[in-house]
Amino acid sequence: MSTVHPSQDPAAGLSVDTSRGVTAAAGFRAGGVTAGFKASGGDDLAVVINDGPSAAAAAVFTSNRVAAAPVHWSRQVVADGAARAVILNSGGANACTGPQGFQASHETAELVAEGLQVGAGDVVVCSTGLIGVQLPMGVMRAGIPEVLADAAADEAAGLRAARAIMTTDTVPKQAAHTSPEGWSVGGMAKGAGMLAPGLATMLVVLTTDAEVRPEVLQRSLREACAVTFDRADSDGCMSTNDTVTLLASGASGISPDELELTRALSAVCHSLAQQLITDAEGAAHDIAITTMGAASVVQAETVSRTVARSNLFKTAIFGNDPNWGRVLSAVGTTDAEFDPDELDVSINGVMVCRGGMIGDPREGVDLASSRKVEVVVDLKAGAHEATIWTNDLTHDYVEENSAYSS
Amino acid sequence: MSTVHPSQDPAAGLSVDTSRGVTAAAGFRAGGVTAGFKASGGDDLAVVINDGPSAAAAAVFTSNRVAAAPVHWSRQVVADGAARAVILNSGGANACTGPQGFQASHETAELVAEGLQVGAGDVVVCSTGLIGVQLPMGVMRAGIPEVLADAAADEAAGLRAARAIMTTDTVPKQAAHTSPEGWSVGGMAKGAGMLAPGLATMLVVLTTDAEVRPEVLQRSLREACAVTFDRADSDGCMSTNDTVTLLASGASGISPDELELTRALSAVCHSLAQQLITDAEGAAHDIAITTMGAASVVQAETVSRTVARSNLFKTAIFGNDPNWGRVLSAVGTTDAEFDPDELDVSINGVMVCRGGMIGDPREGVDLASSRKVEVVVDLKAGAHEATIWTNDLTHDYVEENSAYSS
Repeated sequence: MSTVHPSQDPAAGLSVDTSRGVTAAAGFRAGGVTAGFKASGGDDLAVVINDGPSAAAAAVFTSNRVAAAPVHWSRQVVADGAARAVILNSGGANACTGPQGFQASHETAELVAEGLQVGAGDVVVCSTGLIGVQLPMGVMRAGIPEVLADAAADEAAGLRAARAIMTTDTVPKQAAHTSPEGWSVGGMAKGAGMLAPGLATMLVVLTTDAEVRPEVLQRSLREACAVTFDRADSDGCMSTNDTVTLLASGASGISPDELELTRALSAVCHSLAQQLITDAEGAAHDIAITTMGAASVVQAETVSRTVARSNLFKTAIFGNDPNWGRVLSAVGTTDAEFDPDELDVSINGVMVCRGGMIGDPREGVDLASSRKVEVVVDLKAGAHEATIWTNDLTHDYVEENSAYSS
Repeated sequence: MSTVHPSQDPAAGLSVDTSRGVTAAAGFRAGGVTAGFKASGGDDLAVVINDGPSAAAAAVFTSNRVAAAPVHWSRQVVADGAARAVILNSGGANACTGPQGFQASHETAELVAEGLQVGAGDVVVCSTGLIGVQLPMGVMRAGIPEVLADAAADEAAGLRAARAIMTTDTVPKQAAHTSPEGWSVGGMAKGAGMLAPGLATMLVVLTTDAEVRPEVLQRSLREACAVTFDRADSDGCMSTNDTVTLLASGASGISPDELELTRALSAVCHSLAQQLITDAEGAAHDIAITTMGAASVVQAETVSRTVARSNLFKTAIFGNDPNWGRVLSAVGTTDAEFDPDELDVSINGVMVCRGGMIGDPREGVDLASSRKVEVVVDLKAGAHEATIWTNDLTHDYVEENSAYSS
């Protein structure tokens, strides 16, 4: 047995409470109801409302150029650094729906704005579900007054919102952190990794009662996402609808410094990202791939991501096979700095490959009884590292993704 | 129904005979025997010998930086544009085997050279099988005299060689073209796409009796590979051992011009690449993704390859679902020139997506009864196009790749 190098935790040391969500921060109300978008009849319309005093907001969106109508709409909304509410529906992605789809997102924002007595330009819209189908706006028009009436500031209301955005998720996903000074960050997320297609969209709403200027909010959010959601890569596919929105109410009256805020955001985002990976349907293993000894963080991330996207590696892990040859094969396709004869690979603490060759016996690795798999690649080319989280490639993945929408 | 745009054929019009292989060209002998590398007991050692008068040779190798010992050896062999023989074993990749592995490839070449009375520096070595295990050199030493004795110039001998390099391949793969002037190109290949991992290596030996200078040979080979093998992308994973070797005997006494040679090589390589895709184990559909209307060939190839590597798209096809939303999602992650609202996608001739939105009813596409799937993406941004060939992602893929080596 060799030493284990633990996968990094971008917010090590900060406690996160997964029983509270978007209403953990003061100044927010949330709600969730059954509007009727889902054929299955589950909750499918959620709202998060910022009652202020501040309306600062930031967001990051999918970089997919085939972006859904609500993404186009919401980009405009947050461009001025302010938003009063986020409305989210499951049961329809409103993607690839043309001008009519954009009009639907616009009308959705107008309806929420009317109910809240704010401007439509302050309402972020998120959608998730099937691509290429127009949203039934009759359902939306009837549902919005209901979900606004449902909105409340308590924990149960936050949980209702977290439930209403679920698609193939099996559990609602929430996280919150309260600082020693008394300001909080809360959040909710949906998405079962990218393992649940079409339905794969990751939607996240984060709230804070800290008093923060929009430009700081945007910078902190980008930084937190870069080391959390951006590093959770279940199947390499990118949705047309991914949206992470952060609203700041200022209700605590406290202005934390930027580093503190970024750490708290990272802690909450890290917890939500881990919940997404763990709930990835069809997955039998949660895999953390850490590349250490890299010449730069970018190179470390590239190597980890390349391994995470290798179908051969991912099927080997499903077969409980600590197949380091497939790890090396993937590493070899990158342009990161390394000497092939110097590469070490350890899997769950056993150094199965040492100096580019067979190392300790792979029989020492028992993947069959472990959902967690920690792969560490040591490039021996520098002092940087990065971890990517992914899942294995399983029969259930193929089943879910081939059966859907056909 | 809309018009079908046929996927391009890089060697349209040239007839290819798949019943003949490396011995279709004059001046070559080939052989294949059971040496004992494979636990299963099948043929596992092959040779192709160039009896001249010319010894011109060219090769292309995997660009994986974790390259196997025989790749390191063979790169040196062909560096001077000459080679007399190719020796190929299945049942062991000799990859990630360190200095001992390189010594094994070197000794293999020495043994063949001794038997043929040529220099070891003129013997190309290829291996395929498990990564990380040393080759049993006793088996090699006993097998080489046998395979040299087996070598003959007839069609049956060519087929024996093609059989001896099979791993998870279900059929031997051969192709040959004879020009109206009387010179020929022959070839054999192994590899079941990349769908058969570890065993996934693609090994190809091409022969010609044309008289060609080595630099022309290398240029023609690169060009032919670029539009055939390089565009067959079964699962996006790259082997540590891939090798395509071309030997020219000059025995026909004819010197074709470079364009003619490239076309003939492309025709043979195209046939072999299609045979690889069709034999990809675990696959239920052979998929050709053509991107047309691109601003450049590179952009067309990038878009087609990105779709070919989308697990969501590949599982949809397995489910017989002509899911254009997943095609668009993949296209949207590239930086090719296009307007998302202008994209057309047709699947087996039905334009399921028109102008970035839903097009003709997908019910018009019957994938259940068709092994061939033709996807055409029209970017409407230029006049270039490229086709990538791939397979669907199936339960059998997961099964084979998770069960192997564990």
